[in-house]
Parts: sequence; structure tokens; C-alpha cells
Amino acid sequence: MQILPPALQTLIEDLGSLPGVGPRTAERYAYYLLKAEKNTADKLSASISKIHDGISTCQKTFALVEKGKELSDLYTDAARDKQLVAVVGEPFDIVALEKTGQFKGTYHVLGGLVSPIDGISPDQLHIEELMVRIDSDKVKEIILATNASVEGESTALYIQQQLGDRNVKITRLARGLPVGVDLEYADQITLGRALEGRTIL
Amino acid sequence: MQILPPALQTLIEDLGSLPGVGPRTAERYAYYLLKAEKNTADKLSASISKIHDGISTCQKTFALVEKGKELSDLYTDAARDKQLVAVVGEPFDIVALEKTGQFKGTYHVLGGLVSPIDGISPDQLHIEELMVRIDSDKVKEIILATNASVEGESTALYIQQQLGDRNVKITRLARGLPVGVDLEYADQITLGRALEGRTIL
Repeated sequence: MQILPPALQTLIEDLGSLPGVGPRTAERYAYYLLKAEKNTADKLSASISKIHDGISTCQKTFALVEKGKELSDLYTDAARDKQLVAVVGEPFDIVALEKTGQFKGTYHVLGGLVSPIDGISPDQLHIEELMVRIDSDKVKEIILATNASVEGESTALYIQQQLGDRNVKITRLARGLPVGVDLEYADQITLGRALEGRTIL
Repeated sequence: MQILPPALQTLIEDLGSLPGVGPRTAERYAYYLLKAEKNTADKLSASISKIHDGISTCQKTFALVEKGKELSDLYTDAARDKQLVAVVGEPFDIVALEKTGQFKGTYHVLGGLVSPIDGISPDQLHIEELMVRIDSDKVKEIILATNASVEGESTALYIQQQLGDRNVKITRLARGLPVGVDLEYADQITLGRALEGRTIL
């Protein structure tokens, strides 16, 4: 017996493939799309179908760019300091850093982080290209802006080793208390790092 | 300056129209679709675009059925008792009740619940059709299976009044403690209802 029509059942299953979306959430999304005007569903359908054909990666920084563009605006813009490079794991990390409005250098997207469990080894990441870029752009400082996770730390360590005796300043994002957090709720590792990295008033 | 390519920006905005999806979640979904095989995105795009053309409503019960079908299987099936009708607010409420495996009657979907705040009045719901059905199918019992919310309660009350002096048994789903919940965590209204509706062992 059909409890739900097949088109709806299929949509619920396909929505369920999105990260963190269980059957109940998928049902909710599907029902919303069904109840909303046809236009809403059509618009979403079109933008999903265009995603693969409309996007490419920057040949220097590996940031996401629109199809047909070779280099990201964040690299070509004259106001951007090409000798200061923030190294991040994923393209969306750029969005997070850009939101601070405090960074005027350029980016380099690794395309992931070293993770033996997930089978990601350093040679799958854009580390070789980073070395080439450091030499060709005469980079003065690279900020290892990888996640504060085990994978982020090991990736940073690996890159540091690869840099060898190149004359480039290597920095990392500060570890410490997130703004607005009470001391008593901070975990001990974070607190330990906050002590280590204490600054003089 | 373009931080994200337009195709991706558009997709994030469109995904953000889904209920409960904020910018961060939308980014996560969009990036997943971009990283997954093209096939995953194409499949989801296709199932979303088919949703409006593939689905219709049952002319008797207003449950969702596949396009071209006049009546829901849940109504036409001979094993289903047409004289026992569960009245629900939304089509997905049927899925929840079917999962219990304990209900062998038929359904009637109101298409919403009375809610002055959202501008939903009784005449926008399929209540008139319910009355016609009660008379034509010689319904013996209707179970008011609306949500246990203010809207659900007022809708139930309204339907009860509309039934007038029709010779039909009206029941409601029991209110009480959800299975597995500790007494101390139950709210006072639920506990009050559980006391009122106590059963003899």
C-alpha cells in the first residue's frame, strides 16, 4: 500500500543524503517544498543543477571561482598582499576569515587536512603548489590557519617541515579563550593554550 | 570582490529558504553537493523539480497521492474500515499514525489547523468535506487526531460543534506521559492530563 506518493518518497530519500539530515528533517523540507509555490522548488532545483557546471577552482589559490575564471578576485585584487598567505583547509574557511575584515593577504586552499583515518595523505593536498607559490611570489609570511583539530595541527606541522630552509615567517592562529566564554566552562586544553599564549597588558 | 562564485552564492541563498536552515547549514549543504559526485546533485535537483507535477491530493481524504490517482490506497483498500475516520491536520500526520501499525480505519486530512494568528479560519480547512463524508460513508467513529497544541485543540472543538446531532462517536487521542519519560521532567499540564485520564489496572 502506498502511504506516500513515489515522487515525495524519492524526494525525502534524496534530501536525506544531505549531511546531518535525518528522515524527519527530510520530510519537513519535502513538505515545505510541496506547500511552497512551484517557483521556490523550481529555483532550488535549478541552482542545484547548476552547481557543478558553474564552479571551478582558482589555479593559484584553489579557492572556488566561477567557471571560466582562472584566478580568484581574492588573488588578483591589487589591494591584496601576495607576500602574505593564509593557508586553510577548505574553501569555506575563506568566508569565515573574510568576515573578520582584518585580513588583507591572499589565501591558499589545501583541499582538506591530513587524516590517516579518512585516507587523506599530504600528497592529495595542494601543498606542492603552495611551495611553488612561496618561491614564485616571494612570500614573506604564511599563516597556518588550519582547524584547531588533530588533523589541522598535523597538517600545519607537515607544512612547516616541508618549508625546509626557505626564508619565510611561519605563524599560526592564536589558541585561547573564545570571546564571551566563561573561564569555568573552558576545557582544560584550551585553557592550557590560553596560559601558554598569554599576552602582556 | 567575489568571495564565493555566484552559482554557489545563489545555491546557499535558495537552500536557506528551507525551514530551519540558517546560512551556516546552507553553506554546509551547498559544499556537500559541490564535493559529492555530480550525480547526487542532479538526482536531488530532478526530484525537487518533479515534486509539484508528480503529486496530487485524494478527493475523499485529502491525503497526498501520485498524480492521476483520484483516491488514496489508504481509502480504497478493502481492509480499511471506512466507518472509522482519523482526522489529522497535515498529510505527514498519516505517516506517523501508520508507523504505529495499530490503526485500521481511514484518514481525513484537514489541510491545516484553525489558527487566527496565521489567518487560518475553519472554512479554509476540509471540514465541510468531512461532514459530507460522515453522512455518505455512514461513519460510526471519528478520532480527532489533531496536534496537542492550542490550534489542535481549537480545531477539534470546532469540528465537535459542527457535528451537531449526527449519531457518530467522537474520540480524541489520549493525553498523558510520553513513554520513557520521568515523572519529574513532565510539565504540569501534561501531568494534569495524565491524572485526569488515569486508567484502572
